[in-house]
This record gives sequence, C-alpha cells and structure tokens, in this order.
Amino acid sequence: MEKHDFFRTDLLVEHEEMVKHRTEQEKKTLKESEGILFEEKRTGRVIITSVKINAEGEERIGKKAGTYLTLTVPTLFPTDQDGMEEMTEVMISKLSEMTSEIANFEKSKVLLIGLGNREVTPDAVGPLTMDRLKELVPHYYSDDGSRLFVYAPGVTIQTGLETADFVIAMTQQIEPDILIVVDALAARDSSRLCKTIQITDTGIHPGSGVGNSRKEISKETLGVPVIAIGIPTVVDGPVLIADAINTLFSYIGSKIEEESHPSSRLSVSPWLRSDNKDADPTKLIPIFGDWASWPHEERIQLFEEVLSNHDLNTFISPKEIDSWVYQYADLLSKALKAWMEKK
Amino acid sequence: MEKHDFFRTDLLVEHEEMVKHRTEQEKKTLKESEGILFEEKRTGRVIITSVKINAEGEERIGKKAGTYLTLTVPTLFPTDQDGMEEMTEVMISKLSEMTSEIANFEKSKVLLIGLGNREVTPDAVGPLTMDRLKELVPHYYSDDGSRLFVYAPGVTIQTGLETADFVIAMTQQIEPDILIVVDALAARDSSRLCKTIQITDTGIHPGSGVGNSRKEISKETLGVPVIAIGIPTVVDGPVLIADAINTLFSYIGSKIEEESHPSSRLSVSPWLRSDNKDADPTKLIPIFGDWASWPHEERIQLFEEVLSNHDLNTFISPKEIDSWVYQYADLLSKALKAWMEKK
Amino acid sequence: MEKHDFFRTDLLVEHEEMVKHRTEQEKKTLKESEGILFEEKRTGRVIITSVKINAEGEERIGKKAGTYLTLTVPTLFPTDQDGMEEMTEVMISKLSEMTSEIANFEKSKVLLIGLGNREVTPDAVGPLTMDRLKELVPHYYSDDGSRLFVYAPGVTIQTGLETADFVIAMTQQIEPDILIVVDALAARDSSRLCKTIQITDTGIHPGSGVGNSRKEISKETLGVPVIAIGIPTVVDGPVLIADAINTLFSYIGSKIEEESHPSSRLSVSPWLRSDNKDADPTKLIPIFGDWASWPHEERIQLFEEVLSNHDLNTFISPKEIDSWVYQYADLLSKALKAWMEKK
Amino acid sequence: MEKHDFFRTDLLVEHEEMVKHRTEQEKKTLKESEGILFEEKRTGRVIITSVKINAEGEERIGKKAGTYLTLTVPTLFPTDQDGMEEMTEVMISKLSEMTSEIANFEKSKVLLIGLGNREVTPDAVGPLTMDRLKELVPHYYSDDGSRLFVYAPGVTIQTGLETADFVIAMTQQIEPDILIVVDALAARDSSRLCKTIQITDTGIHPGSGVGNSRKEISKETLGVPVIAIGIPTVVDGPVLIADAINTLFSYIGSKIEEESHPSSRLSVSPWLRSDNKDADPTKLIPIFGDWASWPHEERIQLFEEVLSNHDLNTFISPKEIDSWVYQYADLLSKALKAWMEKK
Repeated sequence: MEKHDFFRTDLLVEHEEMVKHRTEQEKKTLKESEGILFEEKRTGRVIITSVKINAEGEERIGKKAGTYLTLTVPTLFPTDQDGMEEMTEVMISKLSEMTSEIANFEKSKVLLIGLGNREVTPDAVGPLTMDRLKELVPHYYSDDGSRLFVYAPGVTIQTGLETADFVIAMTQQIEPDILIVVDALAARDSSRLCKTIQITDTGIHPGSGVGNSRKEISKETLGVPVIAIGIPTVVDGPVLIADAINTLFSYIGSKIEEESHPSSRLSVSPWLRSDNKDADPTKLIPIFGDWASWPHEERIQLFEEVLSNHDLNTFISPKEIDSWVYQYADLLSKALKAWMEKK
Repeated sequence: MEKHDFFRTDLLVEHEEMVKHRTEQEKKTLKESEGILFEEKRTGRVIITSVKINAEGEERIGKKAGTYLTLTVPTLFPTDQDGMEEMTEVMISKLSEMTSEIANFEKSKVLLIGLGNREVTPDAVGPLTMDRLKELVPHYYSDDGSRLFVYAPGVTIQTGLETADFVIAMTQQIEPDILIVVDALAARDSSRLCKTIQITDTGIHPGSGVGNSRKEISKETLGVPVIAIGIPTVVDGPVLIADAINTLFSYIGSKIEEESHPSSRLSVSPWLRSDNKDADPTKLIPIFGDWASWPHEERIQLFEEVLSNHDLNTFISPKEIDSWVYQYADLLSKALKAWMEKK
Repeated sequence: MEKHDFFRTDLLVEHEEMVKHRTEQEKKTLKESEGILFEEKRTGRVIITSVKINAEGEERIGKKAGTYLTLTVPTLFPTDQDGMEEMTEVMISKLSEMTSEIANFEKSKVLLIGLGNREVTPDAVGPLTMDRLKELVPHYYSDDGSRLFVYAPGVTIQTGLETADFVIAMTQQIEPDILIVVDALAARDSSRLCKTIQITDTGIHPGSGVGNSRKEISKETLGVPVIAIGIPTVVDGPVLIADAINTLFSYIGSKIEEESHPSSRLSVSPWLRSDNKDADPTKLIPIFGDWASWPHEERIQLFEEVLSNHDLNTFISPKEIDSWVYQYADLLSKALKAWMEKK
Repeated sequence: MEKHDFFRTDLLVEHEEMVKHRTEQEKKTLKESEGILFEEKRTGRVIITSVKINAEGEERIGKKAGTYLTLTVPTLFPTDQDGMEEMTEVMISKLSEMTSEIANFEKSKVLLIGLGNREVTPDAVGPLTMDRLKELVPHYYSDDGSRLFVYAPGVTIQTGLETADFVIAMTQQIEPDILIVVDALAARDSSRLCKTIQITDTGIHPGSGVGNSRKEISKETLGVPVIAIGIPTVVDGPVLIADAINTLFSYIGSKIEEESHPSSRLSVSPWLRSDNKDADPTKLIPIFGDWASWPHEERIQLFEEVLSNHDLNTFISPKEIDSWVYQYADLLSKALKAWMEKK
C-alpha cells in the first residue's frame, strides 16, 4: 500500500467531494471550459465517475492533468459474483479506452507491478493480483523475450529499496511500452471501502501518505505511460467514525422530517447520504448539540486530533477483508488478462 | 470464532462494567459474602482482573459460577515482544492455578481444540495456535497412545458439523482429563481489542452470538473440566464508534475542566477513561447536545439501530490484524507448552 | 498418507502383477467362476482396470472381497488439462456405479475425509482435496443440519489420535450413509506414479504400511459403506531403482533382438514394459551378469536389503510434485462435487 | 533453481571427482604450484572441502579462478538441529573469510537475492531464505537509505525477465558493495542431496543447466563481488540410479572380500563409497556382468540414454523435501544474519 493515495491527500478529492454534494443541476454546469470535465453514469450496477482535468484545470485547482476514474458498486458484498463480473466488464472497457493511443499496441511490452505487503491482508491486493498473472507470462514469451513482465516487489521495509526506485530500475531494464501498477488504498469515505476500483493515468506517489519522500511513478518521471489501479481496502478510524455520525445525523434528521412531512418518507441509504443533505441541521442541535451543524470534514479533523495517540487512530478493515482481497485479486487479474488478449 | 462471546452477551459483562466504573473504595466493598469476588492487580505491565462467582453469586446475578480472568496490557503493540512475554508468564501461572485440582495431573490426558476459521484472519487465532502445538504431540506419545491431542476442526459452515458436536465426539473418543479450547472473540470495548486474554473455567457456547442453537461446551455437558481461552480480535462497528465518541467527550470534558481548574491537568488515557468519569457531562451539552449525558450503552444501542442495514454494522479489525494474530498464536502456544511441561 | 497402501502390501498386488504379465489370451481365461473378475478397458486415454473379488475368490487368494478399480493415463503430464478432464469424467461415472445401491441416495448423508499430512507435499492430496470441498457444505446445509461433512484431520503424529479412531468417532457422531476417504499412496510401480487413481469399496488400513496397529476403516468396522480413493504420489527408492534397471534390460534386450530380427523393431514404452517380456534374458547375461535373469521382485528385495540404512531407502517423488498434488486435488474435488450433484 | 549448477556441468566437478578418488597420499601431492589448492578438513560433524584455483590453475583446467567451498554433514537428517547448528557456525566463519577483503566492510551495502520458484518445493530454498531475512531490513535502515537489500524475484517463466537481467538492474540501481545469491542446485551425487552447502566467489550462470543463454552473474559482469550459495535439493534420476547401483556393487564387493579376508570387515558407508574403491571389480562380473567394471560415469550416461524419454529421467527429491527446505531456509538466514551483524 505505502499509502500513496492519489485520491486521498490531494486536492482532487476535495474537489470531487464538493462536486458530489452539488445537485444534479449544479453538476451539469461544471463545464469543460473550466478545464475539468466531470461525468457520472451507470452501467448495470456499476456507477462510473470520470473526472478529466486538462492543463487549464490543472492550473486552476492544482491537481495534475489526466483522467481519474472511479468504478463503484454500492451494493457489493463479499461473495457477490455478479457484481464482481459487472465491474470486470466495465474495467476491461475502460482500460482499453485509456490505452487506446499507445502505438503498435498489439506488440507492445507491458510491465505489471503489484505494490504492497503480501503479509498484511488489506495491503496484499497488489501482490495477490500478480500471483494470478504470473501464469500468463509463458503465453507472451518468445525467442525475442517476453512481452509481459510481472513483479510484486514488496514494500521498502522488506526490501530496503524504495518502491519508486525499484520501478525505475525495472523500467530502465525492460523498457516497456506501458506500466500498470496495482495497489491497495485507504478509502476517503467508508461507504466506498472494498466497493470501488480507482483508475488513473496520472501516476502515483508511493509513500506519500506516510510522509516519505515522494518519488513519483508517472509518465513524466519514467518516460513511459503509467496506469495506476487502486482498491480502497482500509479506512482511517477518524473517517469511519465521522461517517457513522453523519449517517446517524441523516437518520435522525429524516425521522424529524417525517414527523413534520409524513407524506415524504425518505429512505436513508448509506451510499447516497447526500440525498438527505437538505435536512435542516438546526433541528438536530437540541439532541446532538452544535457540532451537528459542523461540516463533515471538521468532525473528521476533531476525531483526528482527539484520537491522535489513540488506538482508534489506525487504519481499519472489515472482518471479511480476506474474502474481499481474494475477490479483487481475481477480478483485477481477469480484467488485465482480458485486456492483454484484446491488445 | 462463531461468536460465542462468553463475556459479551451475558450479564457478567454488565456486572463487570459496573464494577469498573466504581471507585477503588467501592470496589473493595464488593464482598465475597455476596457470592462474587472481584479482584484487580497488576504484575509488571499486565493488569489481571479476576471475577469469581459462587453458587450464591450465580443465583443473584444469573451468571454461571466459576472463574473469569482477564489479562490485559493496555499499552501492548503489534511487535511488543516484552509485553507478550509478560503476558505469557502470567498466563502460565494462571493456567496452573486453574488446573491445580485435577487429580493425577502429570499423567492426565489433555485435549486442545482451536476454534475458528483459519481463512478469516481475525478468526484464525485458534487454528494457528494449534498449528504451533501439533509438533508437541510426539513428545507425549508412547505405546499407550498420546497424552496430548490437538485439533482445529474449522467452523460449521466448512465441515457440516456443529462445533460443539465435534467437541463432544472427540471427548467421548479420547476421554481426556481436561479440555482446553482457544478461540477469537469480539471485544466489548475497543480499547481491549488485541490487548487482552480472557480465561474461564465455565465453558463456552459456540455460535451463541449469532443466534445459532447454543450447545454448551462445559464440564456439565462433557463431564470433563473445560478451560476456555479467548482473544478479542474484532469489535462491533457500533461499539467502536460509541467508544470513539466517549473518548471525544472525555477529552473535551477534561479540556473544560482544565480551564476551570488549570492546576489539575488531567492526562486522558484511552484505557483509563473512567479516570475522567467525574467530569460533569452537563458541561458538554452545549456542544454535543443532550446525548452527551446519555449512558455509554445507550449510544451503542443507538448506533446499532441506525447502522442495522449498513456496512458499518460489521465486525472490524485493525489493519495489523495479521501481525496480532500471529503473535497471539505464538504467545498461547508457548504458554500452553510450558503448562504441559510443568504438569 | 500413513502408508496404508491397500494395493501395496497385500496379495492382490501380486495377483494383479501376475495378471498383468499374462498374455491377452490368458487374461480372458481368468473366469468369474474362480471368484475373480478381471477386466481392462480403455476410455479415451484412460485405461480402466477393474478387479472384482467375490467370497469364493476371497477364500482362494486371501484378498478381501470387493471391487478394486485403477484409472490410469500413462501419458499424463503435470499441466495436462485434457488428460485430467478425461480422468475426472471416468471417475464420476465409476463413483456413481459403486454407490448406486445406496438406498435413498439423493437424501443420504455423506462424510468426506482427506487423510494425510498437509505439510508434506506428496502427502497433502487428501487435505487439499477437502479444502476445495469445504465450500460445498453451505449448499447441503438446511435447518435439519448438513448432508455433507468434510474433514482433513491430519496425521496421528500431529493430533495424538489414531486416524482410524478419528474416523470412528466422526462416523458415530454424524451417522453418514456413506464414508469417502481420499489419501496419497506409495506407488508399487514407478510408471504409475502420479498417473493413477485407485478406488476400492473394501476399506483401508491407515498405518498398515509402517507397522502400526492395523485398525481397519471399512464397512465391517464402521457399519457404513466406505469408498477409498488413493493417488500414488511417492515411490520407494528400491522400487524406482529396480524399475529403472528393468527398463534398461528391456531396452538393451530389444536392441539385441533388433539385431537378430531387424524387421521387427520394437518401440520400448516405459508403461508397457511387459511388451518385451518375451525377450530372452539369457542374452543379457554377458553384459549384466546373472541377475538380469532374476525376477523383478528379487531385484527390488536386493535393493531393499542393500539400501536398508541408506538415504536412498526413502520415499521419493518427482520434482513437480507440487504441481501434481494441486492438480489431483482439483480433479478429485471436481469429481466428488459432480457426484454429489448427481445424487 | 534455473539449474545453473555451477558445480555440475563444469569441469571442476570432474576435477573434484577425480580428486575424491585419489588416495590421501595422492591428494597431498596436488600442490599449489599446479594452480589448484585442494583441502579437506573436518570441524565436528562438518566436512569442509575447499578448492582454490588461481590463474595458472584456471588456464590448466579451464575452470574459473576462485574459491569453491563445500560443507557437508554426511549423517544429517531432516530434524537434526545439532547438525544444522554445526553447519551454521562453519558457514558464518567461511562467509567472513571470503568477504574479509571488502573495504570498509562494516558500512558496506549488501544485496541478497534468493533465486528459484517458491511454488516448487525443492526450488524454494532461495525465496524462503529471503522471507526470513526481510525482517532484518529495518535494522539496517537509516535516513541515508538501507544497507541491506533483499529480493526473491521468482523465475523467468513467472516474471518475463531473465534472472540475470533482474540482478543487473538491481545492482545498477542499488550499487551494493557485495551481492550474495542463494539458490537450489541439482546434486551431482545422491549422497550429497540435502546434506551440503556449496559456496563460491566465482559467480553463477542462471539457466545454464537448461540450455538457456548463459548470462553470467559474477564480479566480472556486475563489477561487484558475488558470493553464490547453493543447496543441492534435487538429483537427476539417472544419477540416483547409478549411485544406487554403485552402492550395491560396493556392498556385494565387500561381502566377497569379507569371505576371503574375514578379519577385515569393512563397514560400507554410502558417503565414503571410495573407501571400497580397491575392491576388485572383476569379482563382481559373474553376478553383475561386464558393466560392473565400467566407470561410474558411464553407467550414468547409459541411464541417461535409456531413460531419455522416460518419466524416470526427471529431477527427484526425497519425500521430506518440505522439511529439508524449511530447515535450510532457517540455517541460511541465521548464518547470513550473524554475518551481517559481525560486519
């Protein structure tokens, strides 16, 4: 994992969150002219969120130009074969789109790298995906050498070498036409935990989340197109707690609404908590006090401060994390295999 | 795991919690004459809590007579060799105490059973402990057969047989002088998560926590003394959230206290949250509303209700759970090995 | 494994070997009237050898009455998906035949037990097969309990309990309508190593091969029909060496034949070494001395004596044993799954 | 493994074998003046064979100049803790000797690479050794980066990249002061199987044994001193068979000797088969024919020819190979850890 979290510590997240809380009407007014193209659509059960930033947008919001894709099945569960298959299909088509401009594609050399520590279950999704892809190598092997290269180098604390330096060394040796990295992520929102695939062509910064030197893995630093695929498998304790409190406030808020407008019973879904965003927070104040009216981010910050030396200030994962991680390793390896074959 | 949770769903917990919140003075007044002997002491970094209930106590609080031990190192961390060793020493001596009345002890036959699902990391502590104990069997094997028997049968959903029925069949076949079961537990209090060993001689109910039929594994049902050893490796989402809110309230409460009594700066430790129990909750009401004055249990119940159909209503474990589980398997196997040798 | 080797140490083997070396004509004369029905046929690449012994035959050759099936693909190799699939199909149909007389078959309770030590690769085929079958249990689970039970109890040296006693305890507790055990075997003939499935309804004797007390697992001792499925995954050093010398003698023998009869060039196949059985051994004596004319069994015995305190007197397995063992675990679990569904 | 077998396919082996069959007297006459220094001594149960070749020797026998060490405990068995510890001690001291000339040793950067395929038990000794060494990395990590680097890259067929190219890329990136590679080997002599550690400073050729392009990993190609550590974990079928026949001939030969010289009963040890080399082979000819007088190597070649399309022409390992491989991974990691600390 090495907490690079391209979606997490950077401005895009806040931008995106901001976008999320806008009404449909408002979303449509985010025009390309501003340098940011936001799009959300649904294919079967999969919600596909795409944010494209061009040079103008990069300058405006300070977030690197490129494409940021999020595939989510809000109702996914650990043994949900159908949901996993729908995500696989969408992922294959999105990967193909994002790599369509690579010249001489069918003969290109591909380097796949699974980041993370295979001995820490929620961090093992990258290495386990590579385990399932190793068996493809012989199919792409000829007298000229291989067209497919697969590595799961482990993390710096196991190998001694910074992950970015490993990737640089391999890229120089292999000279691939494209580099694809798979990694586990920390979820920014507990409702996305284990239900989302994030794909970007802007590269990643292994170690960024933990204050390590931020050597970038990107087209700019390697001279090779980079696709980063991330699965949020852990969530910060403070984020999870603040999310639960949000859900509580929404729930109580809608109960209060129901009483005053009994005809409009809202169903509260955890995923679509913004549904209820118009509930009047002032009605919650008698029960929950002033902080019910604070922005969500401020409650997260409060918990981060309070829990800073506390056990709860840790990354947390669901009890079924073993099952989730195996499923995503299956999903990602299937999608990457199909993408290789389509090339 | 099969969520038997002998400490969890039963009255003892509440009794214990009640006890915990009493002052030292009050604790001393809990006399044996009432049928319950409560004792708390410290050996090095290990806090040992012992609750002994006799027939009178059983009738009074409806909790089975016997001994309930809790060993805790509040400051334990995943690679804390010293802390683990201190717990091991205490555990060996407590096991010896609890089994001192078994006749002909040095020649007794011992059946060790590790409950739980080895494919779910937080539930694997029982099976992994048995993996480390299997290698002892040859040392206790003679022409008369073995004096040590080790099994990790898996869970009902894998084997088809209820765990209690497996234990019954093995007990009838082997006729041991004592049965020791090791299992993972759900923590009732997130500050105990992965920092506690629970030991009881009252037996367990595999499956009790999930509403399955509660076949008891105990001296009464098997005709053999039973020692149950449990490690809390997961915590309920609602419990964790309510604990975090408690910590928040304590923290803010002490800040307010500090302002009025700047000379008595309290350090807030997550473990000893009761330190601050005298903080006046009414001072929190302006910020956090009325619920700041609710009992802790009511906030848990509120989250259980609100999150009932929600992802957060799940068992949760820390990201380092792999590391914790391996360490406890090492600790328990070392303690059980030393106990066997002392016999 | 526990070396029960139902085919190995018992008379049937010698009988079978005797049969193998007869000509086609002779084989046909082994009539059922003698109490033994020998049959060999081929389905695709699979050679199916069936030996059925009735009460008369049991008395005559001292071998327990019942059916002994051997499925072999002589040309099988470790990644041979087609060969494995052909064997799977044959196995499903043979299992159905052997269990066709069980009353109320579709509602019967089935107990599957994988014998052997999962930490010793060639012995792990039983446990690994059960790992793949555990996931079926929920499909056969209802309020009345399960109709499928799956265990891999490990070996006596790990658990303390004799395997047969474990099976007895489980059979008494579960009261299945049929017991199926899967185990690794020692091959009697190195050309069968990892290329053969053996199936019998006569039961097994875990531990028989290593001089342990021979508690039988059979219909007679358990009161339940027993099907034993065995995969030869190791071979005795002396057997392997004697086989290699046989191959050498056959090879040189046929070279000598060729010189005198250049028109009848025999191809020497390792599997069908009896093809060459008519080669005159006396022609080999000048090169290889007198022992070239000895019976195969005597050369095995010589090596057993010479190597008795020697490293080569050990069980040996091919370097690809990991791959073989995983494949057979897949094959057997698929076949057993299909058989369960057909019930 | 990638069968590089520095000891196997090269002339040194034959040279060494030649040496082995000389009498003690003859051995002493192999003087350094000839460019080859042969030395054999014993420390406890460990036999240490050292062959040092200088430039003159290299020219004379065509074998690369450098040191070739073999540590053997002929009586080693799979759970032989004492024997393993004796080997560990010898290995630590020999490693220190071989690396004593590295300048600024205590601050040097060390790159450790475990070759081989972790999914094939006898080939897993390199990767498993690295698994045990990863945990050392944090101890050698500072703000300047690490002084210890640990990788187990897998084999070409899994990664797509030739192992030598991986090593080159890592060496260029890390710029270590020394490279140590650990690998499994094919034994040239079945009595050495799993009982020997081979150490050389002349480098290795991954893939050499299987006809792949022989990119050398050596000081010459990398510009960095290279220590290669090899454990023979498999043996060629033909070699094993020829060894068994040798043992047979020695055994029968000594029986015949005994009859004529009953006072000098020789004990036949598999390891020291040369003890008996003076037995008159002509006495064996009546029983075993002419080939009993052939050189050992010719019998190996005969079996290689005869078994060329046969299952027995495969690498073979003992049934306890899992146990051996774990033990060597423990041994090598302990020795390398101690060597790092002594630096």
